Amino acid sequence: MYGRYTQELGVYAKEEAARLRDGGVRDGSGLRRNTSVRSRTADLLEYEKDPCAKCQVCASRCQKFLISRVGEDWIFLILLGLLMALVSWVMDYAIAFCQEAQKWMHGGLDSNMLLQYIAWVSYPVVLITFSAGFTQILAPQAVGSGIPEMKTILRGVVLKEYLTFKTFVAKVIGLTCALGSGMPLGKEGPFVHVASLCAALLSKFMAAVFGGIYMNELRNTEMLSAACAVGVGCCFAAPIGGVLFSIEVTSTFFAVRNYWRGFFAATFSAFVFRLLTVSNQEEETITALFKTRFRLDFPFDLQELPAFAILGIACGFGGALFVYLNRHIVECMRKQKTINKFLLRKRLVYPALVTLLVSTLTFPPGFGQFMAGQLTQHESLVALFDNRTWCRQGVAEEFDYISHHHAWKHPQVNIFITLILFIVMKFWMSAVATTMPVPCGAFMPVFLIGAAFGRLVGEVMATMFPDGIHGDVYPIVPGGYAVVGAAALSGAVTHTVSTAVIVFELTGQISHILPVMIAVILANAVAQALQPSLYDSIIRIKKLPYLPELGMGHHEKYNIRVEDIMVRDVRFITLNSSYRDLQEMLLTGHLKTLALVECRDSMILLGSIERLQLQSLLSLQLSRQRRLEYLRQLAQDNGAHDPLPSLTSDSTPSSPCAHVHLNSPTNTSARQVVRFLVSTQQIAEWEDQQLDQLVDFKNCKIDPAPFQLVEQTSLHKTHTIFSLLGLGHAYVTSMGRLVGVVSLKELRKAIEGSVTVTGVKVRPPLASFRDSGNTTSVSEVTELHKLCMRHRGLSLPREPKPPNHIAYCQNSEPLCE
Amino acid sequence: MYGRYTQELGVYAKEEAARLRDGGVRDGSGLRRNTSVRSRTADLLEYEKDPCAKCQVCASRCQKFLISRVGEDWIFLILLGLLMALVSWVMDYAIAFCQEAQKWMHGGLDSNMLLQYIAWVSYPVVLITFSAGFTQILAPQAVGSGIPEMKTILRGVVLKEYLTFKTFVAKVIGLTCALGSGMPLGKEGPFVHVASLCAALLSKFMAAVFGGIYMNELRNTEMLSAACAVGVGCCFAAPIGGVLFSIEVTSTFFAVRNYWRGFFAATFSAFVFRLLTVSNQEEETITALFKTRFRLDFPFDLQELPAFAILGIACGFGGALFVYLNRHIVECMRKQKTINKFLLRKRLVYPALVTLLVSTLTFPPGFGQFMAGQLTQHESLVALFDNRTWCRQGVAEEFDYISHHHAWKHPQVNIFITLILFIVMKFWMSAVATTMPVPCGAFMPVFLIGAAFGRLVGEVMATMFPDGIHGDVYPIVPGGYAVVGAAALSGAVTHTVSTAVIVFELTGQISHILPVMIAVILANAVAQALQPSLYDSIIRIKKLPYLPELGMGHHEKYNIRVEDIMVRDVRFITLNSSYRDLQEMLLTGHLKTLALVECRDSMILLGSIERLQLQSLLSLQLSRQRRLEYLRQLAQDNGAHDPLPSLTSDSTPSSPCAHVHLNSPTNTSARQVVRFLVSTQQIAEWEDQQLDQLVDFKNCKIDPAPFQLVEQTSLHKTHTIFSLLGLGHAYVTSMGRLVGVVSLKELRKAIEGSVTVTGVKVRPPLASFRDSGNTTSVSEVTELHKLCMRHRGLSLPREPKPPNHIAYCQNSEPLCE
Repeated sequence: MYGRYTQELGVYAKEEAARLRDGGVRDGSGLRRNTSVRSRTADLLEYEKDPCAKCQVCASRCQKFLISRVGEDWIFLILLGLLMALVSWVMDYAIAFCQEAQKWMHGGLDSNMLLQYIAWVSYPVVLITFSAGFTQILAPQAVGSGIPEMKTILRGVVLKEYLTFKTFVAKVIGLTCALGSGMPLGKEGPFVHVASLCAALLSKFMAAVFGGIYMNELRNTEMLSAACAVGVGCCFAAPIGGVLFSIEVTSTFFAVRNYWRGFFAATFSAFVFRLLTVSNQEEETITALFKTRFRLDFPFDLQELPAFAILGIACGFGGALFVYLNRHIVECMRKQKTINKFLLRKRLVYPALVTLLVSTLTFPPGFGQFMAGQLTQHESLVALFDNRTWCRQGVAEEFDYISHHHAWKHPQVNIFITLILFIVMKFWMSAVATTMPVPCGAFMPVFLIGAAFGRLVGEVMATMFPDGIHGDVYPIVPGGYAVVGAAALSGAVTHTVSTAVIVFELTGQISHILPVMIAVILANAVAQALQPSLYDSIIRIKKLPYLPELGMGHHEKYNIRVEDIMVRDVRFITLNSSYRDLQEMLLTGHLKTLALVECRDSMILLGSIERLQLQSLLSLQLSRQRRLEYLRQLAQDNGAHDPLPSLTSDSTPSSPCAHVHLNSPTNTSARQVVRFLVSTQQIAEWEDQQLDQLVDFKNCKIDPAPFQLVEQTSLHKTHTIFSLLGLGHAYVTSMGRLVGVVSLKELRKAIEGSVTVTGVKVRPPLASFRDSGNTTSVSEVTELHKLCMRHRGLSLPREPKPPNHIAYCQNSEPLCE
Repeated sequence: MYGRYTQELGVYAKEEAARLRDGGVRDGSGLRRNTSVRSRTADLLEYEKDPCAKCQVCASRCQKFLISRVGEDWIFLILLGLLMALVSWVMDYAIAFCQEAQKWMHGGLDSNMLLQYIAWVSYPVVLITFSAGFTQILAPQAVGSGIPEMKTILRGVVLKEYLTFKTFVAKVIGLTCALGSGMPLGKEGPFVHVASLCAALLSKFMAAVFGGIYMNELRNTEMLSAACAVGVGCCFAAPIGGVLFSIEVTSTFFAVRNYWRGFFAATFSAFVFRLLTVSNQEEETITALFKTRFRLDFPFDLQELPAFAILGIACGFGGALFVYLNRHIVECMRKQKTINKFLLRKRLVYPALVTLLVSTLTFPPGFGQFMAGQLTQHESLVALFDNRTWCRQGVAEEFDYISHHHAWKHPQVNIFITLILFIVMKFWMSAVATTMPVPCGAFMPVFLIGAAFGRLVGEVMATMFPDGIHGDVYPIVPGGYAVVGAAALSGAVTHTVSTAVIVFELTGQISHILPVMIAVILANAVAQALQPSLYDSIIRIKKLPYLPELGMGHHEKYNIRVEDIMVRDVRFITLNSSYRDLQEMLLTGHLKTLALVECRDSMILLGSIERLQLQSLLSLQLSRQRRLEYLRQLAQDNGAHDPLPSLTSDSTPSSPCAHVHLNSPTNTSARQVVRFLVSTQQIAEWEDQQLDQLVDFKNCKIDPAPFQLVEQTSLHKTHTIFSLLGLGHAYVTSMGRLVGVVSLKELRKAIEGSVTVTGVKVRPPLASFRDSGNTTSVSEVTELHKLCMRHRGLSLPREPKPPNHIAYCQNSEPLCE
């Protein structure tokens, strides 16, 4: 028995160490993730303890750092802005170069159609395959948008490998190649990730150089939240929209005091980004990226508003369809076992195939001629925001500038057909392309499709009312519709309203504010009612540990209470637990924290203890040193003057078997073997004794105030509190007595509705009974009554123990990943 | 003794009732306020209990309401937007009418300077005096901006009379008169208040008509927060800026899920507001309020950016000076006892005098000719945002429209002198005018001053570089500087960056985004370092119960812990408290909630009980019914068949003295008197007995999980938690033992630094000792040790009781008002 369990413990310890060292978890999607929810309260606690950790040594140094923290915030934000602007500019330059190269190849080979086709197709296939392979080898975490992961990280979940230098390199190079290929992919989501990577790496660098304040977690979270704003801001040169978009997309509750950080960093970054463009002689001064020149006096007629509203509603449906399509493609491929297996083995086949298909369809001399295939995203957008009306020729506009609108005109085909083909083809192409395992976002493609759809509606309106609605004074501006459509569709897909601000900053004109706002709000209303946002959809696909929002339509949530969802078999230790209980607890469960209660009868919650603390307690109790002491003691007592040198020098207490192997080949005398066996038995006895002792919590770090809920707390309130405080789990108490535990997992289940599947109905049968008490619920009274009686010294019939309080099964673990 | 305490209790109960009924508190500023902090947790609890309050009767009805809640949210927001747009439009109309009337009077009397002067001066004096008198009589709460109060209300503090119909009427009429007078006052702050009033009244109305969902507090808070956005949004027809401004100004932590409400309502409101203007034939279509026509191709040169940055920094200093001046004026008047007394008696003298002074100085034929005195705020702003350069005549601009820039030109005086005079005079005038007891804000005047300052800088730049910085191609646009200055100064005064968005929406152009952002951020950085925001300054002046922000520079706060600021003499009741203890507790303190602990030795916190609950417990114990029962019992036991009819029918148990008076004039026999005296004595004995009984908490509503902190929690974390959850107080526990309490008051003191005055230094002498423990602090270990010992049945030397645990003095009360 001795050998078994010590070995078990040894194996367990090794496993535990290994788990802690790299801790990778393989999930169904083939991605390797390292997730562990950290209570933000713990972070906060660390935060405050951090500056004083080595207080006696460097108190004055800490003080100095604290005082100069404001300055360092500024410096950090400026550096971050600078870095991101540089990254953004260099990437833009490289992407433009790639695209030019493709055009040049395509143009140079116009004598031979086949060669031209091969060049047109092979170029993106090579780039995308390289991008997929490179990220796969270097850092698979770099795949995809990055916004869902950032949302999860800002929620307080640590996805450690998402913020490493390797990921940064993989993301930047992979993204450059992916965008350079001309596929319908966006850079906005990845930029949020890149900016966060920059911030994290910069933090690490600053911490290594300056130490102190750069070390703590809470500050890093604040900086990450600013970094998200920088990412969007310098991607579109839209600081305000960037801040708002990043808040909407990544936060549940936003601390207004962090607002200025985002604004400052995003503005600085956008400024430097645009300055670099100017310094490169590309532009004369800093203006908007997609400058429009709509007339200011009469931007739109009031009678056009219904058309804008319809455009918004249509975009809402379109956005929901896009999210559905995107998720459906991923789920389909996952369900088809054979496809899935094949694709998992040959990871590069899928992106290559998709790229081949998309680039074949956009081949300009082929089908691409009907859908402006030769234009890049940027050129298409500039053309779509054009202030000329395409369907009517010969209208003299006051401004004239280089535009690519001729690409949209085909001698045989109507402009409407071109636009419709463009919208339909790009729609599914974007939905498919964004499922490729390369760093890419979906915002820009969606934005482009929205602009095209808006342009279509605008052109239809211009055809219907060729002289404007009120007569010949103010004709309809289809470009305005394009702006509205772009904002509405991207708003619908991402469930944000700040895309309105982004389009104003992108176009440099705010004259269409009212139609844009109306369309964006309507699109959001429709899309939110039908589908989750694209980012929430990806969170679900990737099964990231995130707490979903309480939807607007789910009002039955107000009727679910904590007692309906809580896990009642809480694992706890009591003040009079023995080390054996502790060991059992550690061996049978994987909880990160355990509750500490006064005793089994009172169950009064005293605090919570981290698993690691308990492990160290246990290993301290059975430590080598104490074992040696015991053996020395034993030896002295037995009068044996040989203190078993071989045993004490070589053996490790956790693996006495190894000791046997070590010693057996050596030339040991029979006496030594006997003595060894005796001592092994004695050690086993000693360990038994040690395990039977009561745990001494003196050297154990206890969280003395873990978050508590009561049974009557509603799901709505629980959700709010978990979101606000970034909790991972909370104990449910009733008059100080621990009665259950609720973790993110239970909460997520309840919100996603699977709680109704597992037996608990929306309103459980006994629910009305609960409300029948006049002022206080029945259970409360009973608990109180017991406490009173216990206190007043009356004898209380001892409750039957909960039959399997230890069998707190796997699925009730707070940290599901 | 019997008579004394029952009377005391009776008086106390009456006082309590009166306090609850109208609860007015008079503070130094002569304002009557009704403040009581409500724990938002309590609200949340109510929220969830609300739909099921009468569950057995109307469960299905509740369900129906819950399901249709989303729809009702939309309806509510649409109604709110409609209402506010109408109010805004009607008020604008009335204000414009008033201002026209003044101009007409002034114009019609131009033959006689004296008559003209009298007309010019008397008109605003009458209006302002009426406004001041009207609000004073009807609802003094309508005075001032309203944003500080809304900030406090959204923080979770109930300022009840701030959201009544009377206040609404007073605010709307008072504001119309005040703005119609042409004084340098703004409508933005009051509009936030008016919108909140609308929302509150609408909620009440809907609750009265539909019931159910409209009743609960949490929803009202959500709606109030949307209302603030509507207020700003429809005041400036700036929905996005309105939402952001209201978030920055009123929230500490913002729930992103409430974002769309604000956007929707503000957009709808702005739309209807502008639609009304169009329908009134004032404008052709919906455009910006202060439309600018700056060139789009080259809005500014990059070399101009330093000038914009300097403008921003100067505006930062200016903003801080404005806040300082405004507060200083109020404080000066308060300190001068004689002035203060005089003004308190003659409330209308001060506004009349200020108005007289200001209007005299702006009299157009007098000093006003040097500072464009005849222009209204709106006209001035239109002129300042003009795209022409004033200092150079004869520059042909492509656009030409009606502008008031000629008012700024004086035959003898340079345009620079006019602008400087305008800025200086308006600066102090606005600072003084906003201290008048009328409904008014300071945003618009400050915005105007900023625009004038920007125009001044712009004109200086245009004079220095008459051909533009790069040559004759692109001259400098001083109007752009005016836009930047307006955003920067208003941003500095209010400590917001969203003024940038507001100016874009106000002017309808976003081309100057970069200079505006740079100037606003710099202005904010400077102003935040020097002074609190105007609204925080007013909160301090009015002594509203608000938790101040943790400033950026106050990093010593990280070193203050809860144990340094907590009140150690917590008032508590134990499970074995007698009713006498309860009575004593209720008589000696004014706490809203009391802690419930297990027993005096363990001090384990079980929950908290509201004062009202305890009062009802006590009155139940000494209730008339029980008293009568006792008397009947007594009568039966004594064999007396006369059940003392007079005593039982007339007497109220709390005032037996009244009973004596009642009975003495009647023709009572000696026997009756004797019997009465006997029974009085018996009642006294009975009450004594009753009071000695242990409290039965069965029928008492206990909050079983009040918020707990630990001694080591830092001030920073405490502040975050209080802000996040809107707490009023939190208990400090150590391993479940109650050791102290922290309320808003202590926290505010600590943040404002007065904690250093009362003896606790920034870092107390023993602080380093705390950090010397390796893993757990000394006190924790001790506590745990005690618990362990207690639990394991070892005898523990009984601690000396805290000497005056009952003397939880007045100043440690959580609710300071």
